[in-house]
Amino acid sequence: MSTEALFAGWIARTEQHLHAALPDPDAAPQRLHQAMRYAALGGGKRMRPLLVRAAGHLFAADPALLDAPASAVELVHAYSLVHDDLPAMDDDALRRGRPTTHIAFDEATAILAGDALQTRAFELLADAPLPPALAVACLRTLATASGAAGMCGGQALDIDATGRRQPLSGLERMHALKTGALIRAAVRMGALCGGAGDAELARLDGFADALGVAFQVRDDILDVEASSEQLGKTAGKDAAQDKSTFPALLGMDGAKARLEALAADMRDALAPFGARADALSALAELAIRRSH
Amino acid sequence: MSTEALFAGWIARTEQHLHAALPDPDAAPQRLHQAMRYAALGGGKRMRPLLVRAAGHLFAADPALLDAPASAVELVHAYSLVHDDLPAMDDDALRRGRPTTHIAFDEATAILAGDALQTRAFELLADAPLPPALAVACLRTLATASGAAGMCGGQALDIDATGRRQPLSGLERMHALKTGALIRAAVRMGALCGGAGDAELARLDGFADALGVAFQVRDDILDVEASSEQLGKTAGKDAAQDKSTFPALLGMDGAKARLEALAADMRDALAPFGARADALSALAELAIRRSH
Repeated sequence: MSTEALFAGWIARTEQHLHAALPDPDAAPQRLHQAMRYAALGGGKRMRPLLVRAAGHLFAADPALLDAPASAVELVHAYSLVHDDLPAMDDDALRRGRPTTHIAFDEATAILAGDALQTRAFELLADAPLPPALAVACLRTLATASGAAGMCGGQALDIDATGRRQPLSGLERMHALKTGALIRAAVRMGALCGGAGDAELARLDGFADALGVAFQVRDDILDVEASSEQLGKTAGKDAAQDKSTFPALLGMDGAKARLEALAADMRDALAPFGARADALSALAELAIRRSH
Repeated sequence: MSTEALFAGWIARTEQHLHAALPDPDAAPQRLHQAMRYAALGGGKRMRPLLVRAAGHLFAADPALLDAPASAVELVHAYSLVHDDLPAMDDDALRRGRPTTHIAFDEATAILAGDALQTRAFELLADAPLPPALAVACLRTLATASGAAGMCGGQALDIDATGRRQPLSGLERMHALKTGALIRAAVRMGALCGGAGDAELARLDGFADALGVAFQVRDDILDVEASSEQLGKTAGKDAAQDKSTFPALLGMDGAKARLEALAADMRDALAPFGARADALSALAELAIRRSH
């Protein structure tokens, strides 16, 4: 099967599972439930669920085991976007071509919807048809990646750094937490569900770390080169907010060269897995070439 | 040992565990870490950790098993207070006699600190020295109680109802979710760690449900009768925000009678356990008689 056909099937499966995992929009409290669905079913690229499934595929994991980890990591991602867009944080009105959650609903509802999406992520894993030790390993992986030592910590570093120049090392550390930690958790949960051993997990961590940086370098390039219409969110924000970015620190050519170097690192990390890693390789390519 | 001595020991153990469970205030991102510690170590009554430990005590659970559930439920409670106090929510400046987290730090940091405290709660359970099936049972219990079908849903119902008159049934349902669900989860996690059976869990659910309502009736009474200084938070807020309360719906005498009826329900629920339930009984008494 082509990777395109694989991905289409995986996305359909993820959408279906997310749909069922979110609370009934017609049951009270309706406004909270509707905001949760609005935030999580708003047509993201589903990159993190795809990474869970592609990493599981590498080890021939039972696809049914991957449903909860795939949806859980997407719900954490969705909650983080809702909160990051709040007026007190990045104050963004547009996301995926639609009003952000606090604009479409209200601020209080957006805060609560983000909170409840995070909770739902962990609940999904606790309720999943996974052997308990595997469920605990996934829960630990996702929690560590999401909290103060991961995504939340990265967002805090980002806020601390806004308006002042960061060195490249600081920028990379911030993104390793803010974006990279969750990408690594996605790959790791998929691999855990496939029974990967420690050496394989370590190799995949290396792949995921490069992917996390590549994802952000591409984001920074797009913020300069693409239009808001293409991005579905406000373009040119980094410069407007005086944020340090890879193009700002390395120049545009330097940023693009960095992206190619990361692509080579990812190919090297996956090479020993052979064709079994084709889906992961294709996702890495997508992340690097994407136009939004 | 007297229940007072038991409680003092349990609180000391909880404080110590929470202290160690929260991130280093001197490590980056410092502001986030400091806000998390400020919110969680600010001298709450630790009622929920005490309930975990008292329910575990009833079944002679190993105290070491109870550390993570006790701290986890308190971190969820702490995160909910941080977010509930935000300007877009209840907009409160005072909590436990100190500035609320968004006043002491800033709004963005308070949002992130709440988020990371929630994550840390689940991470603690995933990292705990619990048999995996027990860890998953505790994670499921805490997540269900915290999310859209529990605490978050109750807060959403509370927001929906602000400014309009609620019937008693609506008020009770709102509080059953907003306050009751987490109290029930505390008792249930303690009992699970002690190996309680289904019949015992059901009996304790009945106790915890009565306690949740009693806790809220007492809160409403105190909001009328106590001063801000006694409460450590703004008194008279319910009336100022035109919130439905038990005294408003039942009259002050009716609310106090309701409290006594709930106390009798709780005594009945615990009676079959005999003296083993003395600590739980004493906590129920404390919740009903407390002056702040």
